[in-house]
Amino acid sequence: MWTYDKKLEYPINIKSTNPKLAKVIISQYGGPDGELAASLRYLSQRFGMPDQKSKAILNDIGTEELAHLEMVGSIVHQLTRNASIEELERAGLAPYYTDHGVDVYPVSAAGVPFNANCVACKGDPIANLQEDLAAEQKARATYEKLIDLCGDDGDVVDVLRYLREREIVHFQRFGEALRNVQDKLAEKKFYMNNNNNLFNNNCSN
Amino acid sequence: MWTYDKKLEYPINIKSTNPKLAKVIISQYGGPDGELAASLRYLSQRFGMPDQKSKAILNDIGTEELAHLEMVGSIVHQLTRNASIEELERAGLAPYYTDHGVDVYPVSAAGVPFNANCVACKGDPIANLQEDLAAEQKARATYEKLIDLCGDDGDVVDVLRYLREREIVHFQRFGEALRNVQDKLAEKKFYMNNNNNLFNNNCSN
Amino acid sequence: MWTYDKKLEYPINIKSTNPKLAKVIISQYGGPDGELAASLRYLSQRFGMPDQKSKAILNDIGTEELAHLEMVGSIVHQLTRNASIEELERAGLAPYYTDHGVDVYPVSAAGVPFNANCVACKGDPIANLQEDLAAEQKARATYEKLIDLCGDDGDVVDVLRYLREREIVHFQRFGEALRNVQDKLAEKKFYMNNNNNLFNNNCSN
Amino acid sequence: MWTYDKKLEYPINIKSTNPKLAKVIISQYGGPDGELAASLRYLSQRFGMPDQKSKAILNDIGTEELAHLEMVGSIVHQLTRNASIEELERAGLAPYYTDHGVDVYPVSAAGVPFNANCVACKGDPIANLQEDLAAEQKARATYEKLIDLCGDDGDVVDVLRYLREREIVHFQRFGEALRNVQDKLAEKKFYMNNNNNLFNNNCSN
Amino acid sequence: MWTYDKKLEYPINIKSTNPKLAKVIISQYGGPDGELAASLRYLSQRFGMPDQKSKAILNDIGTEELAHLEMVGSIVHQLTRNASIEELERAGLAPYYTDHGVDVYPVSAAGVPFNANCVACKGDPIANLQEDLAAEQKARATYEKLIDLCGDDGDVVDVLRYLREREIVHFQRFGEALRNVQDKLAEKKFYMNNNNNLFNNNCSN
Amino acid sequence: MWTYDKKLEYPINIKSTNPKLAKVIISQYGGPDGELAASLRYLSQRFGMPDQKSKAILNDIGTEELAHLEMVGSIVHQLTRNASIEELERAGLAPYYTDHGVDVYPVSAAGVPFNANCVACKGDPIANLQEDLAAEQKARATYEKLIDLCGDDGDVVDVLRYLREREIVHFQRFGEALRNVQDKLAEKKFYMNNNNNLFNNNCSN
Repeated sequence: MWTYDKKLEYPINIKSTNPKLAKVIISQYGGPDGELAASLRYLSQRFGMPDQKSKAILNDIGTEELAHLEMVGSIVHQLTRNASIEELERAGLAPYYTDHGVDVYPVSAAGVPFNANCVACKGDPIANLQEDLAAEQKARATYEKLIDLCGDDGDVVDVLRYLREREIVHFQRFGEALRNVQDKLAEKKFYMNNNNNLFNNNCSN
Repeated sequence: MWTYDKKLEYPINIKSTNPKLAKVIISQYGGPDGELAASLRYLSQRFGMPDQKSKAILNDIGTEELAHLEMVGSIVHQLTRNASIEELERAGLAPYYTDHGVDVYPVSAAGVPFNANCVACKGDPIANLQEDLAAEQKARATYEKLIDLCGDDGDVVDVLRYLREREIVHFQRFGEALRNVQDKLAEKKFYMNNNNNLFNNNCSN
Repeated sequence: MWTYDKKLEYPINIKSTNPKLAKVIISQYGGPDGELAASLRYLSQRFGMPDQKSKAILNDIGTEELAHLEMVGSIVHQLTRNASIEELERAGLAPYYTDHGVDVYPVSAAGVPFNANCVACKGDPIANLQEDLAAEQKARATYEKLIDLCGDDGDVVDVLRYLREREIVHFQRFGEALRNVQDKLAEKKFYMNNNNNLFNNNCSN
Repeated sequence: MWTYDKKLEYPINIKSTNPKLAKVIISQYGGPDGELAASLRYLSQRFGMPDQKSKAILNDIGTEELAHLEMVGSIVHQLTRNASIEELERAGLAPYYTDHGVDVYPVSAAGVPFNANCVACKGDPIANLQEDLAAEQKARATYEKLIDLCGDDGDVVDVLRYLREREIVHFQRFGEALRNVQDKLAEKKFYMNNNNNLFNNNCSN
Repeated sequence: MWTYDKKLEYPINIKSTNPKLAKVIISQYGGPDGELAASLRYLSQRFGMPDQKSKAILNDIGTEELAHLEMVGSIVHQLTRNASIEELERAGLAPYYTDHGVDVYPVSAAGVPFNANCVACKGDPIANLQEDLAAEQKARATYEKLIDLCGDDGDVVDVLRYLREREIVHFQRFGEALRNVQDKLAEKKFYMNNNNNLFNNNCSN
Repeated sequence: MWTYDKKLEYPINIKSTNPKLAKVIISQYGGPDGELAASLRYLSQRFGMPDQKSKAILNDIGTEELAHLEMVGSIVHQLTRNASIEELERAGLAPYYTDHGVDVYPVSAAGVPFNANCVACKGDPIANLQEDLAAEQKARATYEKLIDLCGDDGDVVDVLRYLREREIVHFQRFGEALRNVQDKLAEKKFYMNNNNNLFNNNCSN
C-alpha cells in the first residue's frame, strides 16, 4: 500500500498559461507511452515475477511513475487553470473543454482515452523486462518530442528534462534486472523447455 | 507523491487455488468499475476541484483505491500462482493464459483491456462528485456479485466483504463532499449562470 | 416499440453555418455523456429493474433522450450542411470530413467513435439509478460547456439551454425513482444480504 | 421524435430459462452487426441524404430497428431473469454477471462493449446505401448463426426467424433506395466529378 | 506467402512538404475505410470462402491493397519528412508528433488508432461479399473527400485519383464474385435452409 | 509492393478438428502480440528509419510476418473447418461463431478485435527498435503459452515451434539493427541533443 506525501517529486511552478502545450503534454498522462501506462505496467507485472529483486525494482519504479503521473497532471493543470475560453479554443482544446472542462483526464494528445492495450504483462519475465526497456525508451522519445514542442518555455522544459532523465535511469535499472533474471533462469534451459514454463513464473509470496 | 509501505491494507492469505474465481475477480482490477478506474478517476479529478476539502477527500480515497488495486491483484495472483494448465483451461482462462500467462493484467472479467471511457472528469465539481457517488455504488454492486460467485471460499469472501465495506464508507464521504461543494457554490447561482462556469472551476494551487 | 412523429421535440431553425460549433456539439450525439449514451443506458437498464415505476421512468426518459439525439443531430446537420471545404478546414473538421463528409456520425468532440464503456448497467437498482443521476449531471455539465463555447449564436444557445433544462428535470425524476426503490428494497436488508441479491433484481414481466 | 407504444413489434413469451442462448443472442443487442448498430447507422445517415425518399426509408427502418433492439433485449431478459448463479456459471456468464448482473447491457457475444467503429456514415449516398445493404446481410447471417445455436428451443427460434425475415425485407428496400439515388444522381456524373461532391450531399431540410 | 518487389505499384514523387494533407490522407492508412482495413478484410475472409474463384479474387485484391497501404504510407512520409516543428504545429500535427514523430502510424484522420471493429468476416459468403462491395464504395468516397481537400496539389491528387480508380475496379470484381457465389449456392436454398449453413461455408483446402 | 506466391512459408496439414486450440491460437492472428501487430509495426516503422539497413530489415521481417499471419490463419481454419456446432460450443466458440461463423477474424484469444494501440511507431529509431525487440520476445512468449496449451497435438505443435523459432531469429536481427543505429547516431550525441531530433529521423528516399 502507499502513503501520500503532500509534495511533488520535483517542484512545478509554471507561471505561464499555455493550453497549447497542455494539449500535447497530456499524452504523458493518459497516452500510450505515458506515466499511467508505465505505472500500471510495472505495478501489474510485479505480482508474477520469479525473483524478489525484479519485484522490488518493478515496485520502486512503478511507485515513482505514479509520482510522475501526478507531476504531469500538475503541469497540465497549471498550464490551463487560468485559460480563457478563447485561449482554449485557439489551442485546439475546445473538444477537450466540451467533455472535461479544464480537469485533467487520461487521454493521449490526440484525445483518445487511455486503453490498456498499450501495456503488456506476458507471464514471462524476459518478455516483461524487454517490454519495460522498450517502454522507457518510448517514454524518453515522447519527452524529447514534447521538449521540441515547448519552444522556449523554460519552466516546462526544465520539468520535462527531469522526467526524461528519470526514464533513462529506469532503462538502466531494467537492463540490470534483465541480466539478473537471465542469469537466474539459465537462458538456454529457458528457451529449450517450453512445456513447463508456467511453473517457472510462479513465486512463493 | 507516494511512499510504498511493504504491506497490504488488509491481509490476504488465500490457501486455495481457484482460477475460476480469479477470472471474475480480475474485473475489480481492470474492469469498468474496478479499483484502477476508481483511483484514476479520483486522482485525476482532484487537480481541478474548487476547494481544498474536496481535493483532500479525492486524494485520500484515490490513494486508498491504489491499495485496493494491489489487494485485488494479490487475490488474483494467489488464486492462480499454483494452477496447472488443466485447471486454467477448466476455469476458462486458456485465452488469458495465452496472452498473459499467470501475470495480473488490467482486464474486465470478460477479458476486455481497461479503457478510460468508463471514467469521467467533467470540469464541474457537482458532476464529478455525482460520478464518484455512482462509482462507489457500482463498485459495491460488483463486489456483491463477486461474493455471489464465491460460494463458500471463506478466505476470498472475507477480503471481498472488507473491500465492499470500504466502498460504502467512500460513498458516504463523497456525499459529504458533495453537500459541502453545493453549499459553497450556492447551488442556485451555479445552475443559473452558465456563461462563466469555467472560472468557477479554477482554484489557486 | 416506437412510432415516429415527424417533428422535433423542440424546433430547430439555425440560420448560421458554423462548423466550429458543430465540431463540439457533436459530443452530445456520440460522446461519452451524450444523448446516445443516455438513451442506451436507460432503455437497457429498464429490462431488469425490480418495480414498474422505475421501468416506466427509464422508458419515458430513454425515449425522450432519443428525441434529444435527433435534436442534436439536427443542430450538427444544420450548422454544416452549407459549409464550404474551406470553412470545414478552418473549423478543424477536415479529419471528420475525410471519413464522414458532412453526415452526422456518433463521435465525441475529440473525434473518438462512441464506445459503450461509458454506460453502466449493473444488475443493481441502486447502482443503476446513481449511475443515472450522475449521467444527468454530466450531460448538464457538457451542455454548459457547449453554451460557453457558443458565444453569441442565439439560435444554438436557445436549443442547448432547452436540452440542459431537460437534464435537470430528468435528474429530479431519477432522484424520486431512487428514493422509491430504496423504500421498497428496505435499504438495510439490501445492504446486509449479499448472497441472494440476484433474485432481488428479477421481475415478473 | 418518437412515441412509445407499450407493446413489442412481435410477441415474445419465452418459457425456458436458457442463459447459454442469452450469451450469444446479446450480440444482436450490442454486437458489431446487431440492432443497436443498425438503428444508429440508419438514424444517423438520414440527416445527410440528398433526397426525401432515402431519408424516409432510413427513418422507417431505423425506427423499426429500435423495436428490434427492444425485442432482442426482451429475449435476453426472459432467458436469464430466473437463472440461478449456477446456471449462469455453466453458461459462461459469470464474467457478464460480475459486471452487469442479469441486466441487459450492449455487448457482443464475446463480451466486448458496443463500439461505433462498426457503423459508417460516409457523407456519400451511394456508399451509405451499400453499407446498409451489407449491414442487412450481416444481420441476416448473424440471425442464421443464432438459429444454428438454438437447437430446438422453439420459442426463441420463432422470434429469431421473424427478425431474420425483416432483415431481408430491409435489404430489398435499401436496394430500391440505392437504385433511386443512382438514377437521380446520374451515376456517370457522380463518378466523374469529384471536386464538388460535398455539395451533392447537401439537402434542403 | 508474399515476396517483396522493391517498387511501388504506382510511382510517388511528391515535391511539396504538406503536413496538413498528410494529416487527412493517413486515414487511408489506418482509418476505418482505409487500405489496412481493406487488405485485412479480404485476406482474412479468403480462408473460409466456399469456392476457389472467390478465394482467388480476395487474395488478389487483398494483396493489391497491401501495395496501396504502402503507397499511402509513402505519401504521408513524403509530405512530412522535411516538415519543421512549426509546420507540423500549424497543420494540427503536434499531437501526432508527440506520440509518433514523423513516423507513419495506423490512425484515422481524427487520430484514433486502427480498430478491427470496422472489418467484418461473417462466415457467410453472401454477407462477406456485400461487406466487400460496401468497403470499396466507402474507400472510393474517402478518396473523393481527400481529393476535395487537396486543392491544387497535383502530385498528390494524381496518386489519389489512381487509388480511387482501383477501388471502382475492385467493386466490379467483387460484384462478379457475388453473382458467381449466388449462382453456385442456389440462392433460394441458401436462404431457406438455416440449420446447416455452417457446413456450406466449409471448403476442402 | 508484394507478389503472392501460392504456398505457405512452412507446410500446414492438420488432420485433427480442434476448435479449442483454434480459440487460443487466433491470438497470434489478431491479438496484441500476434503476427498482424508485428507486420503492421515493422512495415509502418520502416518509412521513417534513418538508414537503409534498418529499413531493409524492417521490410524483410515485416514481409515474413505477413507470411506468418497467413500461416496462423491457416491453422485456425484447418482446426475449425469441419467442426460441428456442438464441437464449437464445447470449445467456447459459440460467441465467435455468432459473429464470424468459422471464418478467420482478427481477434485476441479473449475475443477482442485487433486494436493498433498495441503497436508503437515513435519517430525515434532507438525507441522503435527496442519496441521491436520487445515485440519479438512477447511473440515468443505467446507461442510458448500456446505450445503449453496444445498438449500432444503434434501437427500443431510442430508449426508453432517453427514460428517461435523465427521470432528468436528476428530478435537477433533487430539486436543487430539496434547496434548499427546506435553506432551511426553516436549514442551520446543522440541523448544530449533533443531540440532537433526531428531532423535526425528524416531520410532521403
